[in-house]
Amino acid sequence: MEMPRVDPFVLSKKAQLVSRLLDVLPADAVIHDAQETIAYECDALTAYKCPPLAAVLPRSTAEVSAVLAICHAMGVPVVPRGSGTSLAGGALPTADSVILGVARLTEVLEVDYADRFIHVQTGRTNLSVTGAVEADGFFYAPDPSSQLACAIAGNIAMNSGGAHCLKYGVTTNNLLGVTLVQMDGTVVEIGGAHMDAGGLDLLGVICGSEGQLGVVTEATLRILPKPEGARPVLIAFDDNEVAGACVADIIKAGVLPVAIEFMDRPVIRATEAFAGAGYPDVEALLIVEVEGSPAEIEEQLAVIERIARTHDPVELRRSNSEDESARIWLGRKSAFGAMGQINDYMCLDGTIPVSELPRVLGGIRELSHRYGLDVGNVFHAGDGNMHPLILFDANKPGDLERCEEMGAEILKLCVEVGGCLTGEHGVGVEKRDLMGYQFNADDMEAQMRVKDVFDPAWLLNPAKVFPLDTTAERRA
Amino acid sequence: MEMPRVDPFVLSKKAQLVSRLLDVLPADAVIHDAQETIAYECDALTAYKCPPLAAVLPRSTAEVSAVLAICHAMGVPVVPRGSGTSLAGGALPTADSVILGVARLTEVLEVDYADRFIHVQTGRTNLSVTGAVEADGFFYAPDPSSQLACAIAGNIAMNSGGAHCLKYGVTTNNLLGVTLVQMDGTVVEIGGAHMDAGGLDLLGVICGSEGQLGVVTEATLRILPKPEGARPVLIAFDDNEVAGACVADIIKAGVLPVAIEFMDRPVIRATEAFAGAGYPDVEALLIVEVEGSPAEIEEQLAVIERIARTHDPVELRRSNSEDESARIWLGRKSAFGAMGQINDYMCLDGTIPVSELPRVLGGIRELSHRYGLDVGNVFHAGDGNMHPLILFDANKPGDLERCEEMGAEILKLCVEVGGCLTGEHGVGVEKRDLMGYQFNADDMEAQMRVKDVFDPAWLLNPAKVFPLDTTAERRA
Repeated sequence: MEMPRVDPFVLSKKAQLVSRLLDVLPADAVIHDAQETIAYECDALTAYKCPPLAAVLPRSTAEVSAVLAICHAMGVPVVPRGSGTSLAGGALPTADSVILGVARLTEVLEVDYADRFIHVQTGRTNLSVTGAVEADGFFYAPDPSSQLACAIAGNIAMNSGGAHCLKYGVTTNNLLGVTLVQMDGTVVEIGGAHMDAGGLDLLGVICGSEGQLGVVTEATLRILPKPEGARPVLIAFDDNEVAGACVADIIKAGVLPVAIEFMDRPVIRATEAFAGAGYPDVEALLIVEVEGSPAEIEEQLAVIERIARTHDPVELRRSNSEDESARIWLGRKSAFGAMGQINDYMCLDGTIPVSELPRVLGGIRELSHRYGLDVGNVFHAGDGNMHPLILFDANKPGDLERCEEMGAEILKLCVEVGGCLTGEHGVGVEKRDLMGYQFNADDMEAQMRVKDVFDPAWLLNPAKVFPLDTTAERRA
Repeated sequence: MEMPRVDPFVLSKKAQLVSRLLDVLPADAVIHDAQETIAYECDALTAYKCPPLAAVLPRSTAEVSAVLAICHAMGVPVVPRGSGTSLAGGALPTADSVILGVARLTEVLEVDYADRFIHVQTGRTNLSVTGAVEADGFFYAPDPSSQLACAIAGNIAMNSGGAHCLKYGVTTNNLLGVTLVQMDGTVVEIGGAHMDAGGLDLLGVICGSEGQLGVVTEATLRILPKPEGARPVLIAFDDNEVAGACVADIIKAGVLPVAIEFMDRPVIRATEAFAGAGYPDVEALLIVEVEGSPAEIEEQLAVIERIARTHDPVELRRSNSEDESARIWLGRKSAFGAMGQINDYMCLDGTIPVSELPRVLGGIRELSHRYGLDVGNVFHAGDGNMHPLILFDANKPGDLERCEEMGAEILKLCVEVGGCLTGEHGVGVEKRDLMGYQFNADDMEAQMRVKDVFDPAWLLNPAKVFPLDTTAERRA
């Protein structure tokens, strides 16, 4: 990706900008020294890097509004940033932009157990939202793998999911309201603690909009009472596609497990070497977890096991204790770390209709042969959100490019079977150039016209999501 | 509401319009004779009436697109209409508008049980969507009271709910994708059969937008396997507010019944006189229904009954057979009919956080005394969607006006406690002038700018949702 160089004009504009930012923020909230802005040069997609002009760390909606009004008046692009855990470059700066970090917006503003919501500032991390209510027996359902670090702001921007989202839905299904600051500094309230969003459902369009429409500073989130108990069963198969067919049958039968996780042989082997969870050495395994009272757990597992048996599993291992449950989950939870130990990998994030799992797994195997790159599959299978890991050697010239090309082919396959380019990581810079593959010109124009409304000067989170030449065209 | 008169200019424009419509539609699909257009003069909010210039009944997305392109080119407003069951005047014509009825768009285009969706044209009625899949053990969850007549198009426009929506969500939670025809005739595809909407979540903003943004001609809907069984329990109380508190406690405990329906004494008495379901003569009763296997039903009912007992119920009547279940539901299902037999009534539709049920029920009682009008309450209590029925005498001068004024006060109370003006009926013409009570100028501007995008000339479904002077202002 090409980045503009910092020229003298930009420097003088920068001095002016910093001075105006310091009018509305304390000195420790404005980072402009080049030695320090480098901390914001990338997110978790570290292949792309570019330090911003400056970074600001406001502590309130009012401060965010003041910052945006200044940038708007000066025509300075703004890149909102949660915790910077994006795998798609969603928080990557451009050289002429200000990073607006919400990391200091961490307050819990209200907890209401009767109406089951929590009202927080969006810099708060995902896990610490649950942390604020778990002593009272409640939790916040969406649980991305990065939940220890990732901010609610980023969860909302990417509409994040997680292992538990099969049963409880993704962020958009657990988000009741937001405070949104528009690029010109205008603050609007959208949704609330009641059923349904009031007026046009702008809440839906904001969730998953990748910082293109405004900065979300506060959120009202649904919290749920913790279930009585949970129990996983591990089901092993000697064929990927058969495991995929089993997932489709479980979903079709209408049982609603909390999670259906899928791992294939490359991931199982790496995981065993790393964590020694005692998994069988097979082509594919599923971890299916159900929740509820002992009777409900018993009943759901019986249905799942009956369906699994029609697919000739190699092994069917039901957990009978907390210990056994922990061992079954140990491997899955170590999977990404284990893969990282032995390989460089690129983690994709496409969604497909669940019935297409066998076909897509077959297609990925073929692509793997054609490109000569191994693929590990470990993903949330129940909702069709795939995360193929393409393994490559970062030190081998051409390997990354081949890997990126193959990744694009896999995502095109997802779109082809009726799926979508991204489940929860977002489009960011990573999949920007694939958008035209999913959307035709009319579809894309409809989306860009909504962006026009919220951000007419196209200053918010530039060079992402929409094709690269769009920003210049729309600004003109 | 004031309607413009038909002047000679309009008549000549009408002749021109009809001729162009007949170029793209068969003769039987263009209704322009004044004797026949009168069939479209109102919807179920019959207090407002106005025949349209013409009505068209296209049979395909292409025909809808052709009609809209013509009206767009000629600057003719279009009022989309499902089955005309709106209680808020959502399909009320203006004299200069064309009614675009989707009643002939009734095809089932695809059924997929593995991925659990059905793809239909949106003129199909709600109940006949379930009808198309029930032989195979599936159903479509949202079930508005008007489900025998109402069209999916209207369900999407109003984001309709129903008794079963506590567990399964409202329309927006069961809608996977739409084909949307914009006012200029452009056709866009939004969402699909996979997890999450692709790109900006325009699906969310379309659902519930009351025909302001485009005409939805096709929809992909989530279907679900029918549960093994269901069982209601009737719980009677000698105090409205205590019944409300019981609902809040059930929700807080995290049990998820399929339905929690509330009826108060005026409704219970009318219903008993009409249907003789054998309800106790009490201040308030709840019907709580749970679903699942026999073991699951047993367990959920036990939790609900334990919570109910902490509120000193007058009676707790668990159904032990299909017969008893039918009797418990008989009264509830006859309630609106029963009320209509003995009274004129206005049915409101506000939502509130569930914990505010006792406070709002108390507030309604006070308003009832102040205005001297009786109120019956019968509603989906579990999700806080209230339907107070204000009883009045249509033949008594001033009664309707007093009733409307009191209705506005009740809806303001809903907003005051953190709720919303409408749950599932929509704003329409009915609540148009209350929008300013829920939204400030910035909030409303954000909504109107989204309308600007999809319908820059403000031709779609005029004089509804947004304040009446808005259309002229935005068109200018």
